[in-house]
Amino acid sequence: MEIQFLGTSSGVPTNSRNVSATAVVKSNSSEWCLVDCGEATQHQVLKTSLSPQKLAAIFITHIHGDHCYGLPGLLASVGIGGRTEPLIIVAPEKIKEWFLATQQFTDLHLPYDIVFYHSEDLGKVCVGELTVSITELSHRVPSYAYVFTEIKKANNIDQEKLNAAGIPRGPLWGKLQSGEDVIFNGRTVKAENFIKPASAGRKIIICGDNDNPDLLKNDIADCQLLIHEATYSKEFAEKAKMYGHSYAEQVAKFAHKSQLPNLILTHFSSRYQIGAGSAKSIDELEHEALNVYEGRLFLASDLQRFCLSNAGELKKIDKI
Amino acid sequence: MEIQFLGTSSGVPTNSRNVSATAVVKSNSSEWCLVDCGEATQHQVLKTSLSPQKLAAIFITHIHGDHCYGLPGLLASVGIGGRTEPLIIVAPEKIKEWFLATQQFTDLHLPYDIVFYHSEDLGKVCVGELTVSITELSHRVPSYAYVFTEIKKANNIDQEKLNAAGIPRGPLWGKLQSGEDVIFNGRTVKAENFIKPASAGRKIIICGDNDNPDLLKNDIADCQLLIHEATYSKEFAEKAKMYGHSYAEQVAKFAHKSQLPNLILTHFSSRYQIGAGSAKSIDELEHEALNVYEGRLFLASDLQRFCLSNAGELKKIDKI
Repeated sequence: MEIQFLGTSSGVPTNSRNVSATAVVKSNSSEWCLVDCGEATQHQVLKTSLSPQKLAAIFITHIHGDHCYGLPGLLASVGIGGRTEPLIIVAPEKIKEWFLATQQFTDLHLPYDIVFYHSEDLGKVCVGELTVSITELSHRVPSYAYVFTEIKKANNIDQEKLNAAGIPRGPLWGKLQSGEDVIFNGRTVKAENFIKPASAGRKIIICGDNDNPDLLKNDIADCQLLIHEATYSKEFAEKAKMYGHSYAEQVAKFAHKSQLPNLILTHFSSRYQIGAGSAKSIDELEHEALNVYEGRLFLASDLQRFCLSNAGELKKIDKI
Repeated sequence: MEIQFLGTSSGVPTNSRNVSATAVVKSNSSEWCLVDCGEATQHQVLKTSLSPQKLAAIFITHIHGDHCYGLPGLLASVGIGGRTEPLIIVAPEKIKEWFLATQQFTDLHLPYDIVFYHSEDLGKVCVGELTVSITELSHRVPSYAYVFTEIKKANNIDQEKLNAAGIPRGPLWGKLQSGEDVIFNGRTVKAENFIKPASAGRKIIICGDNDNPDLLKNDIADCQLLIHEATYSKEFAEKAKMYGHSYAEQVAKFAHKSQLPNLILTHFSSRYQIGAGSAKSIDELEHEALNVYEGRLFLASDLQRFCLSNAGELKKIDKI
C-alpha cells in the first residue's frame, strides 16, 4: 500500500502546502482512494502520476471547507475527462446535501453515477481489496477517522512443498487447501503441513480533525500506520483545544503508549514553515513528537509518497 | 488601470493555466476587483502581490463551476486572514443561493458582511472610482459581461495658470472651477480659460462565456479594452456554437469592425498548449485573430499583468 499526500496544510493553503487531501494507492496498481478533498486537490493530482479516471472512492472526514471545497471541481473535471464508471463517496450526510445543492445551483451534470455512503452509519464499505470502516473523533463538528484494512487473502497451499513431496496437482490439492487431510500412496498427508497462513492484511488509519487521539484506542492495536493531524505544537495546546485540534506531542504520546510502529503527522498550521526565517519552523513539531515517540515518525509534505510494505515497514519513495 | 490574469483555461485546469479569474487593479493602489473565481483562485493570488484583504468586490459572470468554485475557499481564507470590511459580490442570484447553502452545509462563518447584488437586475454599482454595469451575453446559462468605467473626475482648475495670471487662491478660484466668469482687477476672467477638461474615464469590458460577440455592440464604441473568451479556433466553430463559446476569428472580427484599440483573448480550451508538441499550439488562436484584427492583440496567460494607460494604451508589465 502506498500513501501520497496532496495537501498538508490546515485551514488555508500556503505556497508550499495545499489544504487536506491524501491518496491511498494499491501498490503496483493504478487504482486509488482519496481521503478529503480540499480546494485545488485536482490541481495537485495533475502534478502526480495518479489518474483521476482510476479514482475508486472518496472519503470526506468532516464538513469543513479545507477538507471538501475541492470536491465539485474534481468531480466535474473527472466528468469532462469522460468517466462513466460509478464513483463511491463516503462522507457526512451534509456533504451529500451540499453536493446536490451545488449540482443544482451551478448546472453541474456528471456522465457517471455517484454512490453515496453516509459516514454517520457506515458500518463497512469494500473498495477493491480494502474494507473501510469509521471511528468517531472529536472536533467542532462531527469528524471521522477512516480505517483501511486489507481484505485477508484466502489460505494458500504451498505449491513448492507439494511438488517436492510428489503430490500431483488435482483434487488432492483442492482438499488440502480446504484444510482436509488426504491419503496419498497409503500415507496420511496432513493439510496443516502444506497450508501457508493467510497474510494478516495491513491496516492504516487516516484521521480527520481531532482533539482527542485516545478515541482511536480500539482501532490502534493491530494498525501499522496512523496518519493524524498535528495542527500545533504544545506551545499552542490551549488554542488547539479551543479549535478542536491536536498538538504534536499529544498525538505522539498516544502513538507511543499504543506501541504504534509508524506515525505520519500532517495538517499543519500555516504558521509552521519549512526552513522558516521569522515564522515558526516545522522542525518544532518533529522535535516535540520525537521526544516522546520511538516508532518511525514522518512529517507529511505535499506530493511526498510513502510505501507501507507487507511487513509493515514504512518508507518514503521518490515516485510521484 | 491594471489587469492581472489569475486563470485563463476553460473548463479544467492544466499545469500551466488555471480556470477563470481576472483581477482589475487600480494603478498605484492596492485595492482591486475580481472577475470570476474558479477553483484555486486564492492559490493564484498567493503567487501575486495582490492582497486578499484589499479585495473590494467580486463579479461572477455565470454559474458554471470553472468560474465560481473558488469562491467559498477564497471567502473563507479572507475571513481567517481577519477581514472585517464588507465585501461586495455581484453575481447571478443562483450564486448567492449556492453560497448560502455552502455556508449552511459546511459550517462556514465569516467575520465580515457580504453585500450581494444580483447580476440579473444590476443597473450600476460603484466600487471605488469605478462604475460597473452589465451586458447580457449568450451561453448555455445566463452569462454577463461586466463593463468597468472610471468615474469622471470633476473639472479641475489649472492652478499653475491661475498663479501665473496672479489670481489669488480663494473664492475666485471656486467660482472659476464652477464655470463662472469673475472680475479681477477690473478685468473679466473667463472660466473656460482656466478649466482643465475632465478626463474621459477609461472603459474596459470583461466577458463571461459567450457565443455572440455582437451582443457587445452597444458598449464597445468608447471602450479601450475588451477581454473576451476564445475557447476554440475556427476549426472547431461548430463545437464552439454547440457549447455556447466563441472562436478566435469570430471575436477578432467583431473587434475589427468595432475599431476596438485593445483586445485580450482568454479562456482557452486545454487542447491549446504553449510550445506544444503533439497538442495544438496556442499560436493558432493568435494567428487566426491577427489575420482579421489590426488593433493591439494579446493572448492572456496566467499571472500576466497589463497596464491600460490614461491614454488608452495597453502593455504588458512585469510586476506580479
